[in-house]
Amino acid sequence: MKTLRSYLGDRWVEGSGARQTLVNPATEEPLAEASSDGLDLAAALEHARRKGGPTLRSLSFAERGMFLKEMANSDAKFDVDGAIFTLQTYAEIGTALGAAKFLVDGDGVQLGRSPRFHGQHISVPRHGVAVQINAFNFPAWGLAEKAASALLAGMPVLSKPATSSAMVAHRVMEILVEKKVLPEGTLSLLVGAPRDLPALLGAQDVLAFTGSGDTGMRIRALPNVIRDSVRVNVEADSLNAAVLGPDAEPGGDMYETFLKDVLRDMTQKAGQKCTAIRRVLVPEAHAATVRDDLAEGLKAVRVGNPALEETRMGPLASGSQLADVREGVARLVAEGKPAFGSSAPLAGKGFFMSPVLMEFAKGALAASVHAREVFGPVASLLPYSGKGADAAAIVARGNGGLVSSVYSEDAAFLEEVVSGIAPYHGRLFLGHPKIEMSPGPGTVLPQLVHGGPGRAGGGEELGGVRGLAFYMQRVALEGSRPVIQKLIGVQSS
Amino acid sequence: MKTLRSYLGDRWVEGSGARQTLVNPATEEPLAEASSDGLDLAAALEHARRKGGPTLRSLSFAERGMFLKEMANSDAKFDVDGAIFTLQTYAEIGTALGAAKFLVDGDGVQLGRSPRFHGQHISVPRHGVAVQINAFNFPAWGLAEKAASALLAGMPVLSKPATSSAMVAHRVMEILVEKKVLPEGTLSLLVGAPRDLPALLGAQDVLAFTGSGDTGMRIRALPNVIRDSVRVNVEADSLNAAVLGPDAEPGGDMYETFLKDVLRDMTQKAGQKCTAIRRVLVPEAHAATVRDDLAEGLKAVRVGNPALEETRMGPLASGSQLADVREGVARLVAEGKPAFGSSAPLAGKGFFMSPVLMEFAKGALAASVHAREVFGPVASLLPYSGKGADAAAIVARGNGGLVSSVYSEDAAFLEEVVSGIAPYHGRLFLGHPKIEMSPGPGTVLPQLVHGGPGRAGGGEELGGVRGLAFYMQRVALEGSRPVIQKLIGVQSS
Repeated sequence: MKTLRSYLGDRWVEGSGARQTLVNPATEEPLAEASSDGLDLAAALEHARRKGGPTLRSLSFAERGMFLKEMANSDAKFDVDGAIFTLQTYAEIGTALGAAKFLVDGDGVQLGRSPRFHGQHISVPRHGVAVQINAFNFPAWGLAEKAASALLAGMPVLSKPATSSAMVAHRVMEILVEKKVLPEGTLSLLVGAPRDLPALLGAQDVLAFTGSGDTGMRIRALPNVIRDSVRVNVEADSLNAAVLGPDAEPGGDMYETFLKDVLRDMTQKAGQKCTAIRRVLVPEAHAATVRDDLAEGLKAVRVGNPALEETRMGPLASGSQLADVREGVARLVAEGKPAFGSSAPLAGKGFFMSPVLMEFAKGALAASVHAREVFGPVASLLPYSGKGADAAAIVARGNGGLVSSVYSEDAAFLEEVVSGIAPYHGRLFLGHPKIEMSPGPGTVLPQLVHGGPGRAGGGEELGGVRGLAFYMQRVALEGSRPVIQKLIGVQSS
Repeated sequence: MKTLRSYLGDRWVEGSGARQTLVNPATEEPLAEASSDGLDLAAALEHARRKGGPTLRSLSFAERGMFLKEMANSDAKFDVDGAIFTLQTYAEIGTALGAAKFLVDGDGVQLGRSPRFHGQHISVPRHGVAVQINAFNFPAWGLAEKAASALLAGMPVLSKPATSSAMVAHRVMEILVEKKVLPEGTLSLLVGAPRDLPALLGAQDVLAFTGSGDTGMRIRALPNVIRDSVRVNVEADSLNAAVLGPDAEPGGDMYETFLKDVLRDMTQKAGQKCTAIRRVLVPEAHAATVRDDLAEGLKAVRVGNPALEETRMGPLASGSQLADVREGVARLVAEGKPAFGSSAPLAGKGFFMSPVLMEFAKGALAASVHAREVFGPVASLLPYSGKGADAAAIVARGNGGLVSSVYSEDAAFLEEVVSGIAPYHGRLFLGHPKIEMSPGPGTVLPQLVHGGPGRAGGGEELGGVRGLAFYMQRVALEGSRPVIQKLIGVQSS
């Protein structure tokens, strides 16, 4: 069986001790094993800080962007989940930022009576290492989207994929190392348990984490994180909502767009996307129709091994994920009514389950619907009055999320919902039938920010050049105008 | 004796139970007393959220800015510490932002092959309350600078001044209430202990705290703060450095500017400024001269009751501050050598002490110098080689600070120091003799960001419109271009 190694301090190293086994979720056959026991994580971090950091800081944005371009080009099979597109987008941002090594933030400001007393904000790369801990569900994109922002900003990266799906990131790293794509110390990979990695970070380091809210909370409560103000970006749980407007009549184009997006989000990756629709708000007048139409759509979804052509939905990623989703469905069933499917085990090997659509009465308190992210092919139907303010109040009960979507062509309704729920989200998707090839709300695009307040972790990633801010320190330069302009490379006028 | 009340839920309320006594630090005479016992803080927060929030969100930036202008104009005696200037600056930003109610963030982006699929970031006011806990040392400015950003962004404020100097904020609030300057629910004042105030905040609330690192850490570790991703901005300890360049010869203009700034920062407000210079880095060739010149300057500083005209430096703010500073000086004395003054008690009433200049050998490890903020008229002289990289490495040992300053006209030296220390600071002050009326590094200007990484708390305030971001949620709107442009009020082209 293959043993996955880690790439630390610019060499491949193998953990000792008990190994974790990675299995094929469709067959439960063992695929590989990995361990991080005994690896010197402190030395790996220090190597990245001492070797990778100064190299990246000596390069321009355009030069850093070239490395991202080479990463994107290094293997054609690499665009699982849109990883290549994200790398390409950040490579282009690097080209656009050009020969600079830091960002100039806004215009200079006159601070005194004469223009000589001057202020200028700039953003410079932090002097530490960026530790990036990814979730199991986007094994290639997770590595790429986080590393792209950090490397372009000028910080070295230590990436830790979720162990259960680490084979993908491991293969990516093998290719990058074989082809010598990146300079020494700029990218490290830790496979296996993170051990005390977050506890080893200091004031110039940053930690970007995608995963469960519980783990995010443990990281944020670490004494070093609190004492040294270690920057932490958490992307965690989210009860994303889709709101159908009262004007979107069944059978119409907007209604069909809505149905398509809900069905896609419930079944794509077996619902294992942090941006998938979990709560479906429908005007009560249309609730029964929506239920029947979704049930019909779900019935057509063939669940099975993704190796087979007829399969439309594969298994959950692991046995523990399946157990967790079943427990979540049980909680929903205690408060509502199954309208399609159940979480009863499917026969045979593999972590398969049927899609599940839950139905709730209008105004039901249904605490779990708004508080428990069921990370699988599961969504809940919530009827509402048809008023925008009522829909917004229900959505807000999720206490902060990554993305919600609205399907309406009624400008007043849209305005009411958007203004009501915008502060609770990092992104709002406004469904529209005339958008060709619409990816729906569940797809994260590198041009737009990804993250959300409250339950979603309070973080923010991507969003084009906005994604660099987390890896940089903004600093105000205050003093004589010609001195500052010389420092930032502007010709004095 | 005057009892200071709190203004909560749009009325003056008085705490019950044991009262804390505020004393005149120059005479130790009691001035007033205050208690927050028994006050319903949860109800006060909810009132602000329900009443103040919707009012502010219904107003444009220009209208919110008008309230700041009226605050600035409400009493001429109010410009203690530059509070009025800060309010005026934010009033002007409101005018410039005009009729909008939220911020448009950057340009729209085309997301698909056709321009119809469109993305646009906006920033909207959060739906909670902004709790602002201020330090004792800027009793008017603290209230004003934090409230200005929050109110302009569209969030209601509950401000809590440090009890020992709360008379100023209390008087400000009295004037604002008497003159009915602000709409209901938009500004509340809590005088006395904060009790469980930070524990009452949720996912849409924010907390801005200025004070000791220890208190900042306790706030960040609160379970609700971690669970609900409550946004917390901490402005805490900082070992601000001033670096004299090797080119700045004693007697020259740059040298004199440097001496003036160090002396001002050591003695203004008796050194009780989070931005005051604590570490003075001088090329070893000039160390003795700098020591003697600073000692001579400090000798001329008359310490006494600020009511007397000849007084150049007043007392510390309280007995506990004085005790804390004396303890800090004792730690420095254990590692270095006093070059001027001592922390021995001065005769008579009042919390007075002499300025203290400490002297260290070049390369001395001197852990306390870089780790213990002594919040009084105390600074330490640290000789270095004269090389920029060496100075930067010493400054970086402070592990993150609010501001440091450099005094040199050697472009290469400046570039080396600035690039070495920029990631460790929120602001860098480049001293220059030709800047007329220079306020020096110790003055916070509203146009520039204030805050710093690591030990300084990892926060950021002010910086013009940048200061609003903390009180707003950035959200990406994704969908049909004409729909989004209509939502944000742009005419479709």
